[in-house]
Amino acid sequence: MSLNTIYKPIQEDLAKVEDKLKAVSRVDFPWLAELLNHSLMGGGKRLRPALVLLSGKFYTYNLVSLLPMAVAVELLHTATLVHDDAIDKSSVRRGRPTINKLWDEETSVLLGDYLFAKTGEFAAATHNLQVTSLWTQTLRIISSGELNQIFNAFNLEQTRQHYLQRISSKTASLLSLAAESGAILSQAPEKAIEALKNYGYYLGIAFQIVDDILDYIGTEQELGKPVGSDLAQGTLTLPAMLVLERYPGNNPIKKAFQDRGGQENIKRALELVRNSSIADECYAVASEYVSRACHNLNLLPQGANRQTLVELADYVMERRR
Amino acid sequence: MSLNTIYKPIQEDLAKVEDKLKAVSRVDFPWLAELLNHSLMGGGKRLRPALVLLSGKFYTYNLVSLLPMAVAVELLHTATLVHDDAIDKSSVRRGRPTINKLWDEETSVLLGDYLFAKTGEFAAATHNLQVTSLWTQTLRIISSGELNQIFNAFNLEQTRQHYLQRISSKTASLLSLAAESGAILSQAPEKAIEALKNYGYYLGIAFQIVDDILDYIGTEQELGKPVGSDLAQGTLTLPAMLVLERYPGNNPIKKAFQDRGGQENIKRALELVRNSSIADECYAVASEYVSRACHNLNLLPQGANRQTLVELADYVMERRR
Repeated sequence: MSLNTIYKPIQEDLAKVEDKLKAVSRVDFPWLAELLNHSLMGGGKRLRPALVLLSGKFYTYNLVSLLPMAVAVELLHTATLVHDDAIDKSSVRRGRPTINKLWDEETSVLLGDYLFAKTGEFAAATHNLQVTSLWTQTLRIISSGELNQIFNAFNLEQTRQHYLQRISSKTASLLSLAAESGAILSQAPEKAIEALKNYGYYLGIAFQIVDDILDYIGTEQELGKPVGSDLAQGTLTLPAMLVLERYPGNNPIKKAFQDRGGQENIKRALELVRNSSIADECYAVASEYVSRACHNLNLLPQGANRQTLVELADYVMERRR
Repeated sequence: MSLNTIYKPIQEDLAKVEDKLKAVSRVDFPWLAELLNHSLMGGGKRLRPALVLLSGKFYTYNLVSLLPMAVAVELLHTATLVHDDAIDKSSVRRGRPTINKLWDEETSVLLGDYLFAKTGEFAAATHNLQVTSLWTQTLRIISSGELNQIFNAFNLEQTRQHYLQRISSKTASLLSLAAESGAILSQAPEKAIEALKNYGYYLGIAFQIVDDILDYIGTEQELGKPVGSDLAQGTLTLPAMLVLERYPGNNPIKKAFQDRGGQENIKRALELVRNSSIADECYAVASEYVSRACHNLNLLPQGANRQTLVELADYVMERRR
């Protein structure tokens, strides 16, 4: 099912999110407007704002606070991407040159900071202290996850436990915040807040595992960036861990980490994943997390809203970009 | 008068700020603890937290919310320094190697993000939405000021208006936040909040002008970093503007901007400032802002607290580091 179809129940309000994001880049300085426009209008999936709105649908749907929070999570996501690209020296994202490519890394750092500030302004505009606190905690968790990632770059001695901890920080935490804050802002009862928080969390784990698989089996056109980027940056993901376990001898991933990259190593690693059952095994792990996510939905009122979140979970598994 | 003497009325509570800052670096990951410890325990003046506490002294001094806010402003200051050093590729700060020198720029970016998050957590811990909103606005103002600075690096076509706008964003906004939030959190009446906000703002302008003078007339030992850093980074400050106005012909600052630095140009520019009345003229401008700052204190209850803020303003003028 396409995202457009899944987003149908919140279509109008997602358009308002889009308007607010556009408005963020309407600033007095033309150079800043251009930077903001480039980073915010890059054609993201808007998964995180959608999750805020959809999670807000179960009880009192209050757009006055849900809308700024939906904008806040997308801005937070964008801010981390801008900094990530600068750190990884990536030149393409979503098929377009990155800020650090078009301008430079210094500009990326400050633009990311500006976006962090804007996300804070929108989080505070919910006028809800609990949500604002959760937002700051999530920002801390994400940045410690990213720090963890660069401190462990090209480190082969990482367990699945390390991997899960890392993707939990860098991805699941934000999807969890999106769903939990949607629940809180719609006056959901405690049990439902917990259920949506967990739904978002497990969905986020699955989402990142699929992302990590696509980095091996996707095409550059689908991904909007080069295939094999994780290996090039020394990030040990689940598919790479399975390759290391499966082929203990002359292993292209071991070699890619020792050589700090190398096109030939990366190409061989991609082939090993593509011509084996490794991708399927990773999908099976992701699928388990999707099940856990959906299991939590049983604690919520039955009906169309629940069905939409199940469809969203299915989309996360099927997506190619 | 020494800072220690000025800080006397809040000595015990500043020690609590110090404890909280130390506690920030007590995290599970030893590598992160080391980074945090290095960036937070570098011997800053703690001017911003002191300003929160001193501004909170006029009405209901409520340490439960003043303390987290005092920690928040120092963390925000530290976060911006960490990113600034990475952007400027500075290798020394306060006489110690910078994070980007000891580790690398990537680590600095993520550590700065982590500190932004921590400052948010402390701001939110005031449980005051007004202060939390002001905090996010300030973060946005600071980062747009910094962006403005790098977009105008090595640009000779800047007026004093530009300069004031830039230092207002990058420095005065945070001192203003410190004073204003101290007032808000101590239930000061509207008029007093406004007065303290303005005091902090004008003090911040003066503080930055003095900083910019010291970059020309200080010693490396006093500054804890190389003299002439602003010129090396293409930042046009007030002393530089006066040199440009005064010596329109063969001008070392024009040359430094055209050559993107150059030790010889910088040395000549420093000499021009040192051997002329330019530093004094800049001090006169700073002094005017200090007067404006202190003028605002007349709107506050008379007594020792007011006197302390006058002493703090005097310190800002006299300081050599």
